[in-house]
Amino acid sequence: MIKEKVKQTFDVLNEKGIDAWMIFARESHTMADPAMSLVVGAHCTWESAFIYTQKGDAIAIVGNLDKAAFDDLKHFTKVHSFKEGFRDLLRQVMTELNPQKIAINFSKNDYMSDGLTHGMYLQLMEIFENTPFQNAFVSSEEIVAAVRGRKSPSEIARIKAACELTLAIYDRVTKFARPGHREKDVADFIVEEIRKINVEPAWDVAHCPAVFSGPETAGAHYSPTERIIEPGHIMNIDFGVKLNDYVSDLQRTWYFLKPDEEKAPAPVQKAFDTVKEAIQLAASILKPGIEGWKVDKVARDYIVSQGYAEYPHALGHQVGRSAHDGAGILAPTWERYKQVPYLKVEAGQVYTLEPRVFCPGHGTATMEEIVVVREDGCEFLSNPQVELICIK
Amino acid sequence: MIKEKVKQTFDVLNEKGIDAWMIFARESHTMADPAMSLVVGAHCTWESAFIYTQKGDAIAIVGNLDKAAFDDLKHFTKVHSFKEGFRDLLRQVMTELNPQKIAINFSKNDYMSDGLTHGMYLQLMEIFENTPFQNAFVSSEEIVAAVRGRKSPSEIARIKAACELTLAIYDRVTKFARPGHREKDVADFIVEEIRKINVEPAWDVAHCPAVFSGPETAGAHYSPTERIIEPGHIMNIDFGVKLNDYVSDLQRTWYFLKPDEEKAPAPVQKAFDTVKEAIQLAASILKPGIEGWKVDKVARDYIVSQGYAEYPHALGHQVGRSAHDGAGILAPTWERYKQVPYLKVEAGQVYTLEPRVFCPGHGTATMEEIVVVREDGCEFLSNPQVELICIK
Repeated sequence: MIKEKVKQTFDVLNEKGIDAWMIFARESHTMADPAMSLVVGAHCTWESAFIYTQKGDAIAIVGNLDKAAFDDLKHFTKVHSFKEGFRDLLRQVMTELNPQKIAINFSKNDYMSDGLTHGMYLQLMEIFENTPFQNAFVSSEEIVAAVRGRKSPSEIARIKAACELTLAIYDRVTKFARPGHREKDVADFIVEEIRKINVEPAWDVAHCPAVFSGPETAGAHYSPTERIIEPGHIMNIDFGVKLNDYVSDLQRTWYFLKPDEEKAPAPVQKAFDTVKEAIQLAASILKPGIEGWKVDKVARDYIVSQGYAEYPHALGHQVGRSAHDGAGILAPTWERYKQVPYLKVEAGQVYTLEPRVFCPGHGTATMEEIVVVREDGCEFLSNPQVELICIK
Repeated sequence: MIKEKVKQTFDVLNEKGIDAWMIFARESHTMADPAMSLVVGAHCTWESAFIYTQKGDAIAIVGNLDKAAFDDLKHFTKVHSFKEGFRDLLRQVMTELNPQKIAINFSKNDYMSDGLTHGMYLQLMEIFENTPFQNAFVSSEEIVAAVRGRKSPSEIARIKAACELTLAIYDRVTKFARPGHREKDVADFIVEEIRKINVEPAWDVAHCPAVFSGPETAGAHYSPTERIIEPGHIMNIDFGVKLNDYVSDLQRTWYFLKPDEEKAPAPVQKAFDTVKEAIQLAASILKPGIEGWKVDKVARDYIVSQGYAEYPHALGHQVGRSAHDGAGILAPTWERYKQVPYLKVEAGQVYTLEPRVFCPGHGTATMEEIVVVREDGCEFLSNPQVELICIK
């Protein structure tokens, strides 16, 4: 998988006209530039540089005690090492490569392209002061967005497998969940399901799964509570798994029938249908070349047109090694999303579609699906929820 | 534990004369500023600021969907939230606090104080452009080094418990390991021991434990290999566990007797004794006020005086939530350690002592002990290895 992404890196550098991309890192076990798991595949201890060039060089400069491990990886065309200091070695390697533009990982817009710390940036500027390279540094935003965003067939296969496992667990939740359970009971059930098969949650276990029942819940990113599930509640769950380093991130909506109900009341059904239709509308225009905010707007406008408040977040984000896999995004042009909603969608990107609608007195209807962008449109990797699941 | 460290933070801000310390973070589940697990205790999704002041304010500014989780933590005196943008809110909060100096997490020297990415730094400069705060930002090096470095009694107790568990596992290794095993067999045995009790390794499982046998091993930070342990080999293991969020990091040395040997040959015994004595010498001068490099020098000089090559790394590093727990360090004044070896040792810091000696034809003798610095000296948290363990 690393080899596949490194090969893609060489192609992207040529496409974007950037001679070299450098990851500059230290003590990555404590805090890892997210590009490291994408193209490096191991942790470093001391100041280390990983340099990829248009010509197909993949060069590592690492501390002496890390060298053997990096040699063994066989991800690099050359592994240099140092004992006392890396400064002269890094300058010498760069002089031999002689790049005009060197992309490094800083970005105001995209956290996935922003793995270089400010202290490391200052070091880099000192190392290359008064050299031909001191003004050669540019943001790697475009490189990282392309290498991380454009998923290879094997990456897509892994995400799809994570989706399938997640939906199978949701089927078991349907059999398990009953009025009288606490949100926490449902969450514990899911945690136990993945423990049994030794699979990790896709994000922080404190809110993966997140389980919300009824009209007075806290909203996303919150741990399951002692709240009792009651007849008349809408329940939604946000959950995903990490399988072979790639994740899913899917939401489903259930309704708990009251004793006298045979089906969900009209307002609940309408909330569910509105979310379902907003997802289908967004999917129908999601294709290469469209700016992300336009996809969000179609879903957002539809929901408002049906008399609901707009959802207080983005329609969708990318998924890959992380549940939030970086630029681009299907988001409104709010300050908090900065320039990212203006990026054009590309083939191979994998997005969530996750609008939500609040249904007074019952709870929140929300589904989160996952789609991959193809040349002529998009394809669902999750089997979309088309029926409201009613539990008595 | 978080409350304890937050209280300590207020004291350190007063001691160092810095009005406020701000952690500025986003998507910390992907890449977390190491200060977050120390004083925040949860992950954030969108741009978030965590501000601690001399006066005892602990203020969080987080995205709307993260707010409920941060309210529940009860680690903050006030939790603000935003939907569309954080810029105005952050400026407003800072205007109310009106600090003269604001410490932020960037440092060329210390990765534990360098959690702010360069892209986030640029954002911060934009947010505070043309405000009274634009020149108020200073490095948090001193704050982080003190808050992280000075361990509370309960932190020390946790590290000691991790040491005790590690040494108990080493005792079982002594019963298990025999000539004919591969390095990997011994590593697998240790991994299975901690799996049984559901304990995590202290660092990357690929080289935790690291097992080295014989004279032709790769050195530290390398995965165990297929190499067969033979009579006449020195074996050393570097390993630690994470217990209640705090780690151990300890090394031990074994010798495999040849059929005709009753005890280790003289060169092996001398190598072992030299390491043992270097550790005791270093411990005898390790106390508050001494600069780290001086402690390293005593051990290093002693080893060289006994006719061995100096070890190609530092004598010791701090241990806490991470196996490499940041500034200060007991290291030589090599470029790669920057200014950190000149920092003065403080009471409450927990250091490793880990010199090594190569014994030609046999392997590397190395012990790594852990000590806590007290007002008048230091105290071992690990029961030091004083006898070479011989296995037949």
